[in-house]
Amino acid sequence: MIEAQDTFNNTAEMGSDGFSVLDDLIRALSGSISQENTAEIIQTCAPLSAADIAEVISKLGIEKSLPLVRALDDAINPDVYVYLDNDIVTKLFEDLDDAYIASILNQMDSDDALDLIEDLDEDAQQKILKTLSRKMRVTLEEGLTFPEDSAGRLMQRHLVAVPQFWTVGKTLDFLRAARESVPEHFYGIFVVDPMHHVVGEVPAGRILRAPRSTKMSDITLDDVHLIKADRDQEDVAHIFRREGLVSAPVVNEDNRLIGVITVNDIVDVIDEEAEEDLLKLGGVSNDDIYRDVLKTTRSRFSWLAVNLLTAILASIVISLFEATIDQVVALAVLMPIVASMGGNAGTQALTVAVRAIATKEISASNAWRVIGKEVIVGTLNGFFFAIIIGVVTWLWFSSLTLGLIISVSMVLNLIIAGFSGASIPILLDRYGLDPAVSSSVFLTTVTDVIGFFAFLGLAAMFLL
Amino acid sequence: MIEAQDTFNNTAEMGSDGFSVLDDLIRALSGSISQENTAEIIQTCAPLSAADIAEVISKLGIEKSLPLVRALDDAINPDVYVYLDNDIVTKLFEDLDDAYIASILNQMDSDDALDLIEDLDEDAQQKILKTLSRKMRVTLEEGLTFPEDSAGRLMQRHLVAVPQFWTVGKTLDFLRAARESVPEHFYGIFVVDPMHHVVGEVPAGRILRAPRSTKMSDITLDDVHLIKADRDQEDVAHIFRREGLVSAPVVNEDNRLIGVITVNDIVDVIDEEAEEDLLKLGGVSNDDIYRDVLKTTRSRFSWLAVNLLTAILASIVISLFEATIDQVVALAVLMPIVASMGGNAGTQALTVAVRAIATKEISASNAWRVIGKEVIVGTLNGFFFAIIIGVVTWLWFSSLTLGLIISVSMVLNLIIAGFSGASIPILLDRYGLDPAVSSSVFLTTVTDVIGFFAFLGLAAMFLL
Repeated sequence: MIEAQDTFNNTAEMGSDGFSVLDDLIRALSGSISQENTAEIIQTCAPLSAADIAEVISKLGIEKSLPLVRALDDAINPDVYVYLDNDIVTKLFEDLDDAYIASILNQMDSDDALDLIEDLDEDAQQKILKTLSRKMRVTLEEGLTFPEDSAGRLMQRHLVAVPQFWTVGKTLDFLRAARESVPEHFYGIFVVDPMHHVVGEVPAGRILRAPRSTKMSDITLDDVHLIKADRDQEDVAHIFRREGLVSAPVVNEDNRLIGVITVNDIVDVIDEEAEEDLLKLGGVSNDDIYRDVLKTTRSRFSWLAVNLLTAILASIVISLFEATIDQVVALAVLMPIVASMGGNAGTQALTVAVRAIATKEISASNAWRVIGKEVIVGTLNGFFFAIIIGVVTWLWFSSLTLGLIISVSMVLNLIIAGFSGASIPILLDRYGLDPAVSSSVFLTTVTDVIGFFAFLGLAAMFLL
Repeated sequence: MIEAQDTFNNTAEMGSDGFSVLDDLIRALSGSISQENTAEIIQTCAPLSAADIAEVISKLGIEKSLPLVRALDDAINPDVYVYLDNDIVTKLFEDLDDAYIASILNQMDSDDALDLIEDLDEDAQQKILKTLSRKMRVTLEEGLTFPEDSAGRLMQRHLVAVPQFWTVGKTLDFLRAARESVPEHFYGIFVVDPMHHVVGEVPAGRILRAPRSTKMSDITLDDVHLIKADRDQEDVAHIFRREGLVSAPVVNEDNRLIGVITVNDIVDVIDEEAEEDLLKLGGVSNDDIYRDVLKTTRSRFSWLAVNLLTAILASIVISLFEATIDQVVALAVLMPIVASMGGNAGTQALTVAVRAIATKEISASNAWRVIGKEVIVGTLNGFFFAIIIGVVTWLWFSSLTLGLIISVSMVLNLIIAGFSGASIPILLDRYGLDPAVSSSVFLTTVTDVIGFFAFLGLAAMFLL
């Protein structure tokens, strides 16, 4: 209890300003590591929980965390590797002993071990698999046959299933007799037929409160959501959220029960998927603070290269009006405003649409209503900002015509921004492309080109 | 089982192209609603699950969903309201009968009912509370005393706690005797002392497999993470994720057990928080596709207004160099490129930093390392793009000097973009401000101003 209270207090402090009290400890540890003082390292880490150690390793950076792991050696709780980011584990595994890695993995639940080795490259995978216990190796090899990010990779194989005709009493006796192999955390027991097809699930609460004579098949939940093992994890998460599930059985192609997915497996999936969408919208693919500099630079480069092309495209549009700008330099001063406002208004519509697509709130039946709403919002804000920028321009450059020109192009660009912001992601999704990745390039291209073209074009027509 | 299979198949189809097969049904229903054909509406909806009906209501839009709800009347499963987005429920409740709303809420779990009424304005809340059953009213009024988005609002009050000296056998007998009031889904039973302080938690699996004579206090989990009722839900979600928790006891200021939060409550919180960050980064505050047009326009306006100010600031920078542009119009053509690349590179760094702050992966001990990495990434990509744009400019405008000028300003702006992209959110977070909301305005201001100033300034110095 004392230890639990300590951890709780740590975490409590963490919430208050976003900076962990572990920071002081990390600084002290950093010193011990530089001095290669193994005894001090072990002593400092002894009272920490697995989650704490994982945080310490993450924040020390790879150069210092490797000596830390080596110093702790067998004293490290295998759970630490479960809590660590996969990028960090991959880097640590590159430098750690195969025998050490095997002893760590052998102590884990098979789904956690699978999660760690699936990100390694194939050579490293094979090398580690060979050193594992036979039972763990077979389980992991089987797990690796399921597609990446599928229900099969996510599920726990450790579950309890009983025949239809069993009573609650017989089930309890069985559980007590087989206590060593019964999982600690479970949400329910599956009732299966002789072919191992799922008949139903009995939540733990129903078993605990039922008299011993009750038949298990009489207290199953009304509906069971079978998940195929090759189902994508994003779909699985969607089903869990949509139906408010706590656990669901995973079945193979013959509909036989082979595993169980529980809501706590889903938490990580939801987190991952949300992170992916956020990063993609920001032009970052599969990146995070633990990746090394060169990999990060390379992964960011391609996105910036695409953006350079759209920026050059916008410049080409501007160059069409070089003669106009040459006569009225004020145009050069004002033109970024229209393009920038279009980009921002479009991004607002786009962000809402991308999120709604990810949560499947947009489909064929309401797509046009969503687009229509964004066009109206764009039109309304377009008029407001047209008035503001029109007056500002009029006063700044003492030209009513210039004010009117920028007003008209502002309305135009914000309407188109609303329309494109909603329709581009919907269209990309319709054709099976990921709207989070490419939508914003298309959008900026549209709002830049229209913004510059409308403003400079109107100026060429009415100002000269 | 048949029904369960049907729902599963629906959801299966949904995953394949992102467009639900419910769409056809929604179109048919839309017709029945227009014709006010109540019998047909009830018949079409009869085989649908609560989650399906919620999706139908969401996608029909408010004008058509109100007649639908009225037609279904008592046939509607109260769970439908649990699955619906709160914005939609608020709109529906405005037009529905108080007696009907009360009968819906009275059938719900108290935490679900609390979730629905907490978003209503105070008058509506009071009106509905008055019509509820006494028990539900008292529970909800108590729930409303906890701060918004706190653990107290999130927790279930329905839990099982037993005294320390009880055995597994006595606990099972108690559960069987009190079966009517035992929750179906639970993860564990709490062991408490006479003051109702939490001694430990026994997961359901441990109870099921333990012999009847085992003392409950001998099989509690090693550590328990007490959650204070006024703790923010974002912190609670962080604790659950960090420690991999399945459930945690909620305590009042005297550390007495008053409720339980389970991992499935956390799924929604994680989802909400991820959505919030995503939307805020896109310049959308607390908005979604179900909000009405005027509210949406207003909430988007303020963000665009701030952006207009930064755009005007950038224009002022440009206007400082009007004389330069007047002599070399090519500058007006090229200048948006430097600013735009800086904005995009900075956004990449910013997105990664905002996400890492949200997941508490950045704290004092590694903040400088994160910033340092972004500066290096910015420098490297800065050099690559400097070469590309330098050559393009040289060829396009046949001016080596112009090519060199744009190269130098590109490197400069991308270095500053990397630095600002990482440090602005870290700094805002350090001072208790939400980095997701305001970071990008500051960032664009920096990259626009530096981009235009460096490029035009260098041009003024070396080109004229």
